[in-house]
Amino acid sequence: MRAVIMHSPGDVRVEDVPAPQIVEPTDAIIRVDAACICGSDLWPYRGFENLRRPKQMGHEYIGTVEQVGEDVRDIAVGDFVVGSFMASDGTCEICAAGYQSRCIHVVGMGSIGTQAEYARIPWADGTLVKVTGEITPDRRRSLLAASDVLGTGWFAAVAAEVGPGKTVAVVGDGAVGLLGILAAHRLGAERIIAMSRHADRQELAKRFGATDIVTERGDEGVARIKELTGGYGAHSAIEAVGTQEAMQQATRATRAGGHVGFVGVSHGVSIDGTELFRSGIHLHGGPAPVRRFLPDLIELIMRDEIDPGAVFDFTLPFDEAAEGYRAMHERRATKVMLEF
Amino acid sequence: MRAVIMHSPGDVRVEDVPAPQIVEPTDAIIRVDAACICGSDLWPYRGFENLRRPKQMGHEYIGTVEQVGEDVRDIAVGDFVVGSFMASDGTCEICAAGYQSRCIHVVGMGSIGTQAEYARIPWADGTLVKVTGEITPDRRRSLLAASDVLGTGWFAAVAAEVGPGKTVAVVGDGAVGLLGILAAHRLGAERIIAMSRHADRQELAKRFGATDIVTERGDEGVARIKELTGGYGAHSAIEAVGTQEAMQQATRATRAGGHVGFVGVSHGVSIDGTELFRSGIHLHGGPAPVRRFLPDLIELIMRDEIDPGAVFDFTLPFDEAAEGYRAMHERRATKVMLEF
Repeated sequence: MRAVIMHSPGDVRVEDVPAPQIVEPTDAIIRVDAACICGSDLWPYRGFENLRRPKQMGHEYIGTVEQVGEDVRDIAVGDFVVGSFMASDGTCEICAAGYQSRCIHVVGMGSIGTQAEYARIPWADGTLVKVTGEITPDRRRSLLAASDVLGTGWFAAVAAEVGPGKTVAVVGDGAVGLLGILAAHRLGAERIIAMSRHADRQELAKRFGATDIVTERGDEGVARIKELTGGYGAHSAIEAVGTQEAMQQATRATRAGGHVGFVGVSHGVSIDGTELFRSGIHLHGGPAPVRRFLPDLIELIMRDEIDPGAVFDFTLPFDEAAEGYRAMHERRATKVMLEF
Repeated sequence: MRAVIMHSPGDVRVEDVPAPQIVEPTDAIIRVDAACICGSDLWPYRGFENLRRPKQMGHEYIGTVEQVGEDVRDIAVGDFVVGSFMASDGTCEICAAGYQSRCIHVVGMGSIGTQAEYARIPWADGTLVKVTGEITPDRRRSLLAASDVLGTGWFAAVAAEVGPGKTVAVVGDGAVGLLGILAAHRLGAERIIAMSRHADRQELAKRFGATDIVTERGDEGVARIKELTGGYGAHSAIEAVGTQEAMQQATRATRAGGHVGFVGVSHGVSIDGTELFRSGIHLHGGPAPVRRFLPDLIELIMRDEIDPGAVFDFTLPFDEAAEGYRAMHERRATKVMLEF
């Protein structure tokens, strides 16, 4: 089958590799309908993450079940499914508490690589959610977004305890930050401040519910948010980048007692204990337990109540994946969808 | 009046200083009935905090109101009062949200120094709580504990989202850690694991509600807590020390989705962003908003339902404060009460 392989920073190719097979009785094999390129795929692409050997890329996916292991009960051949980017058993205490991305048997789908014609999904019952109803083109791309960026943005908003009457600052205008805005809007935030310098992303931010745009960054950005919030700072902040600057922007823009939801994959971030102690904020985040939110998100999508698929501003045939990476790296695209 | 002055690490003296006066119309002056020495007073005593000039010490207090400014409404001359170690206006958005210790007009009582015969209390209405009823010797020392260590331990347990069915690990067996145990017990924790190596403190920990004692520290201590919790880690952890080792112990002993409440004054703590990201825990803490809890805590004390004053294992006449510092420094005492 064809799969996207990263050989070294900047070198991405579509190649032939062996198709996956059932390994555990709890596995399923899906035929991937569409996959996409994630902001986090850019870390190795840009050389910020070690790549010891060529790696099959991708962790987001929608598709049709082709085969199931003998212990799979809830998912059947022929089902159209969405799954989280982290496979989870669905039964351990951590899963039961809604933290499926930290399941004691978790398998990161990035270690499998879903930018491929077929993918093995471990813990099929705990990981996949069946979709019923007509899959229009809009719903299709929104379902694909649910696999990671929508679920991640949603978790960030929940972790930031966004809600009615609250002001939320969103740091990062990539797909996750933009969908954090969508989530904050759905969760009833009164005011949503998007930190963005890119006109096209500002546009989408507003469409998703942003009420204010702040173009300043760093200390100036923080000062601007304080200015917009009577000097107090935001009640909530979403951090959707993963750098030291972004984390500081989020924590410093948040008032004492407020909540920061951080979902940007942390790269070189170090949090000063004294600053955190003095801030009085709540800090929560990490790899989003997308599976917790998937059933509700799928329902919102299938009722056409949300359109998270709008983050896909560039769609390519699967074989042109390399161009997709380039486009995201060069910021010509916010989020790239790869179709078969 | 007499006051405790720290001249340099290890050098504490009781000296004559001018009595305080009303400065702002929202101030009160109290005659201090009893004060105490805090674990955090040991940081400068041990030379871990810079002391640029001699400093009047102390931030915990109970006493009788001697004088009030013209804008004080709720507190009157003759009232017996307990107040937080952080003075707060009681009216700003941060106070209204229950984070009085981060009030936009906050005044740390440590900058005033309550180990003295009299103390000026800024924002008297927002800071002090009047006590009615008979003040027995036991209640008196418990009320003194409420001013900081009880309120701080209570906040730590609340920040750690302790509750029924949960297991909580408590890092630190000083007064705050011990009262974190008392709070966890009152808040319904199913299992309370005290990390302690001192027999007398283990004893008090059990009296306050600890169900298990772990004597191991660092990675071994974390492994022991995992062992006691089916491999998952605690649902909640209280960090009541302020060192890197204690913070790591608390965060690593907590399961994904769990909560760490940290109240040890942070000294040289640095939190690795990647480790925090992967952990999936909630982190919240800082200077405790004791004022939020004071009315309830005073009621529990005056009904003899809790006995937090048991942490005072050494009581001295005020003039012997230096011996109190020595005793705490040498771990001969957990918590020292200074009486007039």
